[in-house]
Amino acid sequence: MRKSFNPLWAAVTVSLSIFAGSAMADVKRDGIIKPVEPAVVENPAKVALGAQLWFDPRLSKSGFISCNSCHNLSMGGSDNLKTSIGHNWQEGPINSPTVLNSRFNIAQFWDGRAKDLKEQAGGPIANPKEMAFTHDLAVEVINAIPGYVTEFKAVYGDDRSIDIDHITDAIAAFEETLVTPNARFDLWLKGDDNALTEQELAGYQLFKTSGCVACHNGVNVGGSSFQKMGLLEEYVTDNPAQGRIEVTGKDADRFLFKVPTLRNVELTYPYFHDGEAATLEEAVEIMGRLQLRRNYTPEEVSNIVAFLKTLTGEQPQIMMPILPPSVNDTPKPQPFEK
Amino acid sequence: MRKSFNPLWAAVTVSLSIFAGSAMADVKRDGIIKPVEPAVVENPAKVALGAQLWFDPRLSKSGFISCNSCHNLSMGGSDNLKTSIGHNWQEGPINSPTVLNSRFNIAQFWDGRAKDLKEQAGGPIANPKEMAFTHDLAVEVINAIPGYVTEFKAVYGDDRSIDIDHITDAIAAFEETLVTPNARFDLWLKGDDNALTEQELAGYQLFKTSGCVACHNGVNVGGSSFQKMGLLEEYVTDNPAQGRIEVTGKDADRFLFKVPTLRNVELTYPYFHDGEAATLEEAVEIMGRLQLRRNYTPEEVSNIVAFLKTLTGEQPQIMMPILPPSVNDTPKPQPFEK
Repeated sequence: MRKSFNPLWAAVTVSLSIFAGSAMADVKRDGIIKPVEPAVVENPAKVALGAQLWFDPRLSKSGFISCNSCHNLSMGGSDNLKTSIGHNWQEGPINSPTVLNSRFNIAQFWDGRAKDLKEQAGGPIANPKEMAFTHDLAVEVINAIPGYVTEFKAVYGDDRSIDIDHITDAIAAFEETLVTPNARFDLWLKGDDNALTEQELAGYQLFKTSGCVACHNGVNVGGSSFQKMGLLEEYVTDNPAQGRIEVTGKDADRFLFKVPTLRNVELTYPYFHDGEAATLEEAVEIMGRLQLRRNYTPEEVSNIVAFLKTLTGEQPQIMMPILPPSVNDTPKPQPFEK
Repeated sequence: MRKSFNPLWAAVTVSLSIFAGSAMADVKRDGIIKPVEPAVVENPAKVALGAQLWFDPRLSKSGFISCNSCHNLSMGGSDNLKTSIGHNWQEGPINSPTVLNSRFNIAQFWDGRAKDLKEQAGGPIANPKEMAFTHDLAVEVINAIPGYVTEFKAVYGDDRSIDIDHITDAIAAFEETLVTPNARFDLWLKGDDNALTEQELAGYQLFKTSGCVACHNGVNVGGSSFQKMGLLEEYVTDNPAQGRIEVTGKDADRFLFKVPTLRNVELTYPYFHDGEAATLEEAVEIMGRLQLRRNYTPEEVSNIVAFLKTLTGEQPQIMMPILPPSVNDTPKPQPFEK
């Protein structure tokens, strides 16, 4: 896609490569990927309450597992395990997707079974392989913690006792703030020619021209559609997840998964719904072959990986919340009950 | 210990009870308990590195358990479980003591087997029932994370590769900062007569006169000696811990445990080395009976508990650190290996 020779352009290119560090000024900023903007917090008290619940292991049967256990905000909003560890050390069924920028996804979970963050938040609490609690018991615990009762009343301003809707609404409000602006790629999108190296630009160019952007696009460089894992060549895995068919019941939706975001993908290893791709190089190579019938050369893989690492944004700066203590009547966790 | 009647004093007492809210102005500030002072951070880079390691589950075999899992800084530096959950959901042998103000203890662990925080920090990493790793493997992982290599070099300024001494030294430097100043009791100690209610002062007075301060004294209201659990009446428990004898080998040290700090005790439930006392009321009643042969009335228990709750200080405000990511060559966690 180099422009045809033109002495003036050549001079401009040389001067750019000296002064702006980029000899690939012709890679277009074409709006296929959009920058992440900083979160606007409209209700700080609700977000603060949601942060407490996010870190509170009392939403689990054991009193040991919190939202942050598997979506660790110190580690790209993920747990960096193939599949997660749940109650009683059960092996989870699927790779934990990052919570970062999840507000930009069309739906939540790999199969999209939750329409939004609020609906998602209730899932792990009651999943017997994850937090292994029930909504009723979680609600009972939170209602028996005086500090929470005061805070919920201040945020929701009514006299109803706290219910699961309140709890998941507050957690979702916190999650809405977990965005990662100012990735180097976004700085480039916004006009900073120095933000990317030539190799990174070459990687982005190939990412576009070879078709990755067909699925990995928009603000979240993914997250906007369901696509078949193993489109042109079958994906072989021991993982039993069937994908979107489990929501729609349609055979055409078998092995369709929500396209994962590539934002912060440097931090969210390992990759794929089964966590079987340990490295970005492996993930790029497999995706090229299975989805695009393209065998990338090692150099092409390196270039795409270099581009992908420019999608690491500023991580949310979260002050560890201090949780309101349980009191004598608060139901106790049951860590060693099966 | 009321003063003998004196009309002038009576007038002063009445005016105090009106204007200063305290009719127990005669409770002495006698230096038996000393206030916690804020931490002085001498090496911020080392403390920041220690904070990362504190929150890093890659120091465990599973990649799931960090120091913070059992000494949760959102929950008084404890896990609020009777005994902790370790690798493969093993039931831990003893209640996790709080990390808060642990720098003020004469030694670490319930049996004092570690002389200081640095020595303690190596214990859980290599304990097969806790993080289930080895020092060698932990060191190998940390050396294979480029971000850590850079940071350790900046802090320790030499070209040695990172060893377990570096790791535990940095963790200890972070732990040294985890103090909780400005508890209401400390404000009172420093002269603020309005900091405590009459009930709280009555509780403190009884705490002194009935003998609790014999063991629970100093900055940490405990932590300064080893004492027998069940001094005047046997303590019956299923917990197999033998206490200090396991360190000294002396029969006289059987069932001697480090006196736990009472700072932030409102947050560090459940109580005792076996976690069998669920509430402060229960703990006070049992301690009175077993250690002092004193049967506190319900009102006396309430007063002492009211006093104990004034020992809750300002909790450390910790920004969740962003951990340097693993790279392709970093050894992977083994969550589902026994």
